[in-house]
Amino acid sequence: MCTDAPALVEAIRSLAVRGAPLLGIAGAYGVALAAARGFDVPEAARTLEGARPTAVNLSVGVRRAESAHRAALARTGDPTAAAVAALAEARALHQEDAEASARMAAHGLTLLDELLPAGGHRILTHCNTGSLVSGGEGTAFAVALAAHRAGRLRRLWVDETRPLLQGARLTAYEAARSGMPYTLLTDNAAGSLFAAGEVDAVLIGADRIAADGSVANKVGSYPLAVLARYHHVPFIVVAPVTTIDPDTPDGASIEVEQRPGFEVTEVVAPQVAATGAAGGIPVAPLGTQAYNPAFDVTPPELVTAIVTEQGVVSPVTAESLAEACALSRRGADPA
Amino acid sequence: MCTDAPALVEAIRSLAVRGAPLLGIAGAYGVALAAARGFDVPEAARTLEGARPTAVNLSVGVRRAESAHRAALARTGDPTAAAVAALAEARALHQEDAEASARMAAHGLTLLDELLPAGGHRILTHCNTGSLVSGGEGTAFAVALAAHRAGRLRRLWVDETRPLLQGARLTAYEAARSGMPYTLLTDNAAGSLFAAGEVDAVLIGADRIAADGSVANKVGSYPLAVLARYHHVPFIVVAPVTTIDPDTPDGASIEVEQRPGFEVTEVVAPQVAATGAAGGIPVAPLGTQAYNPAFDVTPPELVTAIVTEQGVVSPVTAESLAEACALSRRGADPA
Repeated sequence: MCTDAPALVEAIRSLAVRGAPLLGIAGAYGVALAAARGFDVPEAARTLEGARPTAVNLSVGVRRAESAHRAALARTGDPTAAAVAALAEARALHQEDAEASARMAAHGLTLLDELLPAGGHRILTHCNTGSLVSGGEGTAFAVALAAHRAGRLRRLWVDETRPLLQGARLTAYEAARSGMPYTLLTDNAAGSLFAAGEVDAVLIGADRIAADGSVANKVGSYPLAVLARYHHVPFIVVAPVTTIDPDTPDGASIEVEQRPGFEVTEVVAPQVAATGAAGGIPVAPLGTQAYNPAFDVTPPELVTAIVTEQGVVSPVTAESLAEACALSRRGADPA
Repeated sequence: MCTDAPALVEAIRSLAVRGAPLLGIAGAYGVALAAARGFDVPEAARTLEGARPTAVNLSVGVRRAESAHRAALARTGDPTAAAVAALAEARALHQEDAEASARMAAHGLTLLDELLPAGGHRILTHCNTGSLVSGGEGTAFAVALAAHRAGRLRRLWVDETRPLLQGARLTAYEAARSGMPYTLLTDNAAGSLFAAGEVDAVLIGADRIAADGSVANKVGSYPLAVLARYHHVPFIVVAPVTTIDPDTPDGASIEVEQRPGFEVTEVVAPQVAATGAAGGIPVAPLGTQAYNPAFDVTPPELVTAIVTEQGVVSPVTAESLAEACALSRRGADPA
């Protein structure tokens, strides 16, 4: 439990709190918490925003709560009223995210049914995008769940998602809990599935979408996009409009977080005393250097469609994305 | 230590003894061992051959020792002389493999230097192909080692190679031991390296090469081939001629070994008491089904070249491969 902003920052850095939409919600509640405790709100906001660099939702959530706080403070001069306003904004974001999930699931299922009229969808997914990362049922996972509820999910292929195994630990749990037909695989076995014609579509989430449609998501997404293209399989990104960052012009401008090498060189087993840098069991020789980017970037030409709560963006271009964002702004502020 | 054939079969099945060339050598010594102990040699040979289905070298090694045994028995009628002949054949195979390694390394380095005239090779490799799998210095790893000794290896990128982490556990060890500049990565981070232009060539081994040039190798090889093609990077297979199986017409005819799901659903940590099916630590919900093919198949059109001890086969076609095999037969039997 995080009772202050620094504890929340640590929870975000260590990935106890993770997943793009949830980071936004957590960031907003973090600002509300700092305000309620009488901390310096702008300082807490900057620390929270900096906890992880790639997911834009974190920054969006933090700034929304911070703006609400600032506006209320300017209006009333009362720190307590400002803290209440920040909390109300965090709650609103939380609620909006749940509603966005439901709309993405509906739009995504319609798209799947159009692309795959034969039904019996066999969906490959990567990392974790369900209710563990969302105020609702998530992004990509919510679409697969909608397909399952509609009786049209034949198989959910779950990439284990090294190094932290979010697929094995979290997505498999969410799939099992929902009674979905699922099978776990190592990330590198996906190639065999494509080659065997066992994948009808790839569904993933996103941590940041640049203005040109480049998609930053969990490392391993880009190889799936290349495989999908090679095998003529749709590659579909499911993300709320807040994930689209008009201030990031293209893929090259996306800062990709590099994480510590021990996530690769050690296996962490809870309750086991071990000797590695992170208290894990070393699986590589001592001193082994690791390359461990948390995300990769898929260029728009490999993305079949981006499903947002506003509808489906396809083909993915700077223009079509800008239109989705404009729709969203109109929706949020019906002037 | 394996003092009888069943113990060796178990060592092969559990992957204590693994890697295509070493399986051939081990199979030949296994037959020699069975003969020396007075066991039924044809029966031992069939059991050994069946221990793993994909690597053709195992079968080639077993049959060579068995033939030598049978011929000596027919000639002399003396089981001891036949056992000596089987052992001599196993030793000959062992020696030939060491020589083949050295020749593959030389041919491979020449090819690298031709393909990458700028030097400073940055090589991506997968699984383990060094002296731990060979009578000599291995296959793909031997080429990287030759580049290192020639001062032309800038970086060896080592895929960890899930699920059994042969890259992290074995290749990283071999690279560290040889003082090579190496970096470990999760298999799914290779895409980011390609996208960043950090890979000049992919070097892998092979477990079986069909007559049409389809290459069965450790699962995860095929996605690298697709990525290499997408990024115009050479994809080079290094394997002795015995890996080419004229009796397997094409990729679809290659039997791909499916291994137990617990290799994916559990992490095995030595010395740790745990509860999973294989005594490992579960990383996925109980009852999770896993798809766990040991190998995948790369079609010849994605293979830039196959480096054998007889020279470089490129482009890879049924004709060019048949020629390499014919050369090899003439070399082995100078009539």
